[in-house]
Amino acid sequence: MTVTTLSTVDADGHAVRSALFDAVGRLDDAIRPVVAYHLGFCDEHGRPVAAASGKSVRSRLTMLAARAAAGDDLCAIPGAVAVELVHNFSLVHDDLMDRDATRRHRPTVWAVWGDAVAVLAGDAMLALAHEVLLDSGSPHAVAAARLVGKATQDLIRGQAADVDFEHRNDVTLAECIHMAMGKTAALLAASAAVGGVLADAPPATVAALQSYGDNIGLAFQLVDDLLGIWGDPAVTGKPVFSDLRSRKKSLPVTWSLESGRPAGRALAQWLAQSGEPGENDLKAAADMVETAGGRRWARAEARRRVRAAQRALDTVPIAPDCRRELVALADFIVERSA
Amino acid sequence: MTVTTLSTVDADGHAVRSALFDAVGRLDDAIRPVVAYHLGFCDEHGRPVAAASGKSVRSRLTMLAARAAAGDDLCAIPGAVAVELVHNFSLVHDDLMDRDATRRHRPTVWAVWGDAVAVLAGDAMLALAHEVLLDSGSPHAVAAARLVGKATQDLIRGQAADVDFEHRNDVTLAECIHMAMGKTAALLAASAAVGGVLADAPPATVAALQSYGDNIGLAFQLVDDLLGIWGDPAVTGKPVFSDLRSRKKSLPVTWSLESGRPAGRALAQWLAQSGEPGENDLKAAADMVETAGGRRWARAEARRRVRAAQRALDTVPIAPDCRRELVALADFIVERSA
Repeated sequence: MTVTTLSTVDADGHAVRSALFDAVGRLDDAIRPVVAYHLGFCDEHGRPVAAASGKSVRSRLTMLAARAAAGDDLCAIPGAVAVELVHNFSLVHDDLMDRDATRRHRPTVWAVWGDAVAVLAGDAMLALAHEVLLDSGSPHAVAAARLVGKATQDLIRGQAADVDFEHRNDVTLAECIHMAMGKTAALLAASAAVGGVLADAPPATVAALQSYGDNIGLAFQLVDDLLGIWGDPAVTGKPVFSDLRSRKKSLPVTWSLESGRPAGRALAQWLAQSGEPGENDLKAAADMVETAGGRRWARAEARRRVRAAQRALDTVPIAPDCRRELVALADFIVERSA
Repeated sequence: MTVTTLSTVDADGHAVRSALFDAVGRLDDAIRPVVAYHLGFCDEHGRPVAAASGKSVRSRLTMLAARAAAGDDLCAIPGAVAVELVHNFSLVHDDLMDRDATRRHRPTVWAVWGDAVAVLAGDAMLALAHEVLLDSGSPHAVAAARLVGKATQDLIRGQAADVDFEHRNDVTLAECIHMAMGKTAALLAASAAVGGVLADAPPATVAALQSYGDNIGLAFQLVDDLLGIWGDPAVTGKPVFSDLRSRKKSLPVTWSLESGRPAGRALAQWLAQSGEPGENDLKAAADMVETAGGRRWARAEARRRVRAAQRALDTVPIAPDCRRELVALADFIVERSA
């Protein structure tokens, strides 16, 4: 599938992007240019650009969920802005913690402005997310803000586990999945649920949207982890074999380690080494994950999760065109190349 | 005055501390011990301690404001917890940004657990502040959360200015006051206003409480800056002449620089030097601030602000015993030694 199948979402995308721009405009002079840069509204000198601004999957999800629940999605714009802000708060802080110097083919906030400004810009986006929801005047603002708050704590838990995993060699697949449910799935689930809540959907519909979001969230992480090993650097903007270079305990890697297969044991030995691996080393490690079955498992599990997400939608009445778009969004997540 | 004059506030203090403890209990296993340590509930190994936990001025203020407005202050407990959490979120992030290794005579969070955990622990406290308010069920939760959100953005603006000032030699007194209004006064003003709002006080009372808070906030910063130069290290827990050591553009320093007096010009020259100053150098610089009149001005201005705070309370009906306590709290701020 191509981006054109998401065209109806793109119409919403424009409204959300405009509301996000307005929200950022409320920030103080010292922080606004930094946040505007990170969100792709301008370059590091404050000059407007038409930069790639990320996939906006979370706000698309909020808008689609609202439309699926109520037919009208204008009510969900503050929710869509809030989930994008929370997502981007976590990106700016994660880049700092992980010392990632590049995102979306541009230098990250800490790399341009230093650590202190990265901490403050993230803080400002998190606080702004709540402000946007609470200022919306929606009768469901509190319920939506509570969902966003819960997802934020899950994000923090996931990132804390991710940081902890770096120092450990005994991370289990169960721990790795729990981490991904926090770091990736929780906010995608909340994004869908917030759309439902703001559109006054019945609890069963909100629960179905949340389950849909949780499942596509894990699928999203599985595909991220596959791209972290086999993604095309020209498309992902990350170095080749990026996740192996940092010896990340990703889902396909952890599955391979627990596979009990010789290639899994060889991978464990490879991960236990220290020092900077060469290109051939990395290729060999990627082959171990492949031979142990981690690549095949991750792809199959991602597809299984997408089907589970789509089935969750079958349990409640949702307009057929919205259902189609939610299914297309789920498909997009597993088929994407960046 | 002594701490005993704040005794009625201390009864509230116990209820707030208990609610704060419960709120922290909702955090994930990875973050909870860190936040509990920072808040003085336990040591770095998770063992309960009766450690000093800071002055809790903000939550005292919220409880007192609620009592002043309504006679009942139980309704304000979630607000008191929220403002303490926002205050402590900013302390943990500020300590990281400023590389301060000690607070309340103990190692700071980043010094014990590293930068990533400090970022996450701060994030978790900010998110938790909103959760506590929104979960409270108060009909005024949204209004209170909006005040807290606005104050958070002011805190971030103030800290951004503070970080920026480190690289500048041309900071004006007006900029310095604006910074302090963000970094210190905004949350004290919000703390008082939140108490009023949760107690369903009329807008004029909320405005009076906010003005009281803004004024004691600036007084608080002026006294902080005086203690940063002339505070007793045994009481403050900071090295002697601490703020001069870091060449901080504090309020008394900035006033002295703008005084037009010879000692002010000598101080400017001293600040422009680089290298680690010796004990005698620091003493000489402190004397320049004193001779230029910065010390006297800061003390007089702090007292003037406390009187303005007390006058703000005269514009609205407030029970005499609560008014007395609010006046005592303001007096405590200017008379404190740590």
